[in-house]
Amino acid sequence: MNINQESLIADLDRLAQIGRGADGGITRRALSFEDAEARGYVKQRLAQLGLEIRHDEVGNLRGRRPGRRDLPPVMTGSHLDSVPSGGRLDGPLGVVGAIAALEALGSVQTVRPIEVVVFVGEEGSRFPRGTIGSAAMSGHVAVQKIWELRDPSGVSFRDALATYGDEGEPIAARSAPFAFVELHVEQGGVLEADRLPIGAVTAIAGLVQRAVTFFGDANHAGATPMHLRHDALLAAAEWCLGIEAAARELGCVGTVGKLEVQPGGKNIIPGRVDCICDLRAAEASTLDALDRRALQLLEQVQKRGVTVEERLLQRVEPGPMHERAIAGVERAAAAAGLGCRRMPSGAIHDALHMAEICPASMIFVPSIGGRSHCPTEDTEPRHLVLGSTVLARFLLEFANLADEN
Amino acid sequence: MNINQESLIADLDRLAQIGRGADGGITRRALSFEDAEARGYVKQRLAQLGLEIRHDEVGNLRGRRPGRRDLPPVMTGSHLDSVPSGGRLDGPLGVVGAIAALEALGSVQTVRPIEVVVFVGEEGSRFPRGTIGSAAMSGHVAVQKIWELRDPSGVSFRDALATYGDEGEPIAARSAPFAFVELHVEQGGVLEADRLPIGAVTAIAGLVQRAVTFFGDANHAGATPMHLRHDALLAAAEWCLGIEAAARELGCVGTVGKLEVQPGGKNIIPGRVDCICDLRAAEASTLDALDRRALQLLEQVQKRGVTVEERLLQRVEPGPMHERAIAGVERAAAAAGLGCRRMPSGAIHDALHMAEICPASMIFVPSIGGRSHCPTEDTEPRHLVLGSTVLARFLLEFANLADEN
Repeated sequence: MNINQESLIADLDRLAQIGRGADGGITRRALSFEDAEARGYVKQRLAQLGLEIRHDEVGNLRGRRPGRRDLPPVMTGSHLDSVPSGGRLDGPLGVVGAIAALEALGSVQTVRPIEVVVFVGEEGSRFPRGTIGSAAMSGHVAVQKIWELRDPSGVSFRDALATYGDEGEPIAARSAPFAFVELHVEQGGVLEADRLPIGAVTAIAGLVQRAVTFFGDANHAGATPMHLRHDALLAAAEWCLGIEAAARELGCVGTVGKLEVQPGGKNIIPGRVDCICDLRAAEASTLDALDRRALQLLEQVQKRGVTVEERLLQRVEPGPMHERAIAGVERAAAAAGLGCRRMPSGAIHDALHMAEICPASMIFVPSIGGRSHCPTEDTEPRHLVLGSTVLARFLLEFANLADEN
Repeated sequence: MNINQESLIADLDRLAQIGRGADGGITRRALSFEDAEARGYVKQRLAQLGLEIRHDEVGNLRGRRPGRRDLPPVMTGSHLDSVPSGGRLDGPLGVVGAIAALEALGSVQTVRPIEVVVFVGEEGSRFPRGTIGSAAMSGHVAVQKIWELRDPSGVSFRDALATYGDEGEPIAARSAPFAFVELHVEQGGVLEADRLPIGAVTAIAGLVQRAVTFFGDANHAGATPMHLRHDALLAAAEWCLGIEAAARELGCVGTVGKLEVQPGGKNIIPGRVDCICDLRAAEASTLDALDRRALQLLEQVQKRGVTVEERLLQRVEPGPMHERAIAGVERAAAAAGLGCRRMPSGAIHDALHMAEICPASMIFVPSIGGRSHCPTEDTEPRHLVLGSTVLARFLLEFANLADEN
């Protein structure tokens, strides 16, 4: 099972040229011209492998390698859209790794078909939700609801898809996969800290995002004594630090990544601060506890005479992966002689929804410095190859399981 | 000494129309068309009072009411330029109040001349410093240096002044005033909290402004465990709260009014935060102590693995007002039967520089809700009248002191 490193890197390099900005970051919004160009390149590569290529009605791209029997396929893949000025691996590795794995399988026949999927709109950087393609494929969100999503310019998902030129078959026309696995960079520093090349993902952490606005009084920074102030930024600062303390205590993660101060003058007390918090945990009970603490902290900071408005932006339940698929990743790593640990994924992936309809897991490879969603996102080439090797072994094993469905 | 409230309010209302934006805020940058229009209105009002009108070489406008003797004048006035989207009183009150005071004096002859001054460029919202007119008039900054100031478009102060059409006489052609007093809104909530109509300003607080950048690592908010993070926003939050605690302890004020988070994605750990802190105290030793604490706090937050860069933007030494002028404000208030307290000014005013060349103080009137530098800046009409009454009494007393100079 030999992965062609040269071809793997060449594919990644080619995709990294599409949508590349001056800072080296990659911007490919869902159903944009750049997204289309990347998908065009992948289609051509899938065609070279002799796969049968189709699109579904929300724009997921699927390439099918036939099996000896017409059973539900083993599916693998990821996405090609990106965050604004993101990295070259988040998404593309799972697609290019799948191509490399199929090349490694060569002419070996399997019992079941193998399908490579390119999910549409995973990042949520254009339409107001992520994991669009898998949410539709799993039936988690109705296709009609997907079509009605609108980007910030008011363009509906359906219109964007039509412009894009993809006319797809109904999702219902195909059966659920037999199993699903996704190769992805970890995007954190756990594997690197543990010096392990492979992670077998046990769960996708659930997520609560809340938009919070603190309203204070925008007075003159020189003329207003400290005891007469209602400083919106100080209230927000206490809240940010309180979320950090709560997440550490509960063993999960909480972040305020967006925080905007108004009016923002250097000599004006902040009158308004708009924040978004992002709370994540692999267990629903932990996620609930963190969310409660964040809301309690909002009550507490109001002692500053600052008022608060909050609204829930998004709640995603934690998604346990399937033991059968997790163990499959571990077996494939062991067979290749590679160290592997079980770990949750803090980031959300399409595997979350695929796990709703079939046994699913993910293969993680280390991220250098834990960096992701940024131009310097990277992974050592040998880790890219090892991840693809584990993927190929997983696909071979599961595609030869004929005893079910 | 009767102030004509109707005329006072009409003048303020007229000026508030010039440069008014959709939010009701007033934007009159130094030497802009709006500034010129406001000055044009005031010139016309000064001419109606029979004053002799001149401009000096940096664009200060001066209107002279002759005295019986040609002694150095008692001077009063303020500015007509504004912060972006500022209020209707910060500046104009001191000019319009002076006009009302002279109207109240009527035909009463004084020993000394009285001059009404409109200082140019007090707010620093166009050129890279404030109190331009008084800094030049006092010799605090050389006229040549003022002329060389450039606005963000690269226009020099001198070119802006030429376009504006004012050709003025050399500052050195006139002697220093005998005394200076400026009527202004407090811009804080102290008088309102104390239910007093008048403040006699004892000092202009000094100022240290520093630009600080915190550099962390912009990693994925879901995939990076709390103990592997270097969150620039949390470091900045600790710093903001530390400045607050230090200012409360030292009995002065400290503010972080500008804070910008990068990259600012809701699911990305903040990798960079740019802030400006604004520290003020009426005594130099207190200002130094607060500044030291702010710098020590910057050292402390680096334990988070965040690095810090800082640079001094501005330092203005505290400016004590003159006891003779302070006591004059108190006497004028007492004569009018008005409650008055001594207080420092947290904001910087032209009186800071005028105090370098003559006995100077300021007359403060309450700001509703302490609000200033914003569209809702306001003061009760009766307080506007009372402040102008105290100003008129001050001018009358000092303009009849012939025993000096």
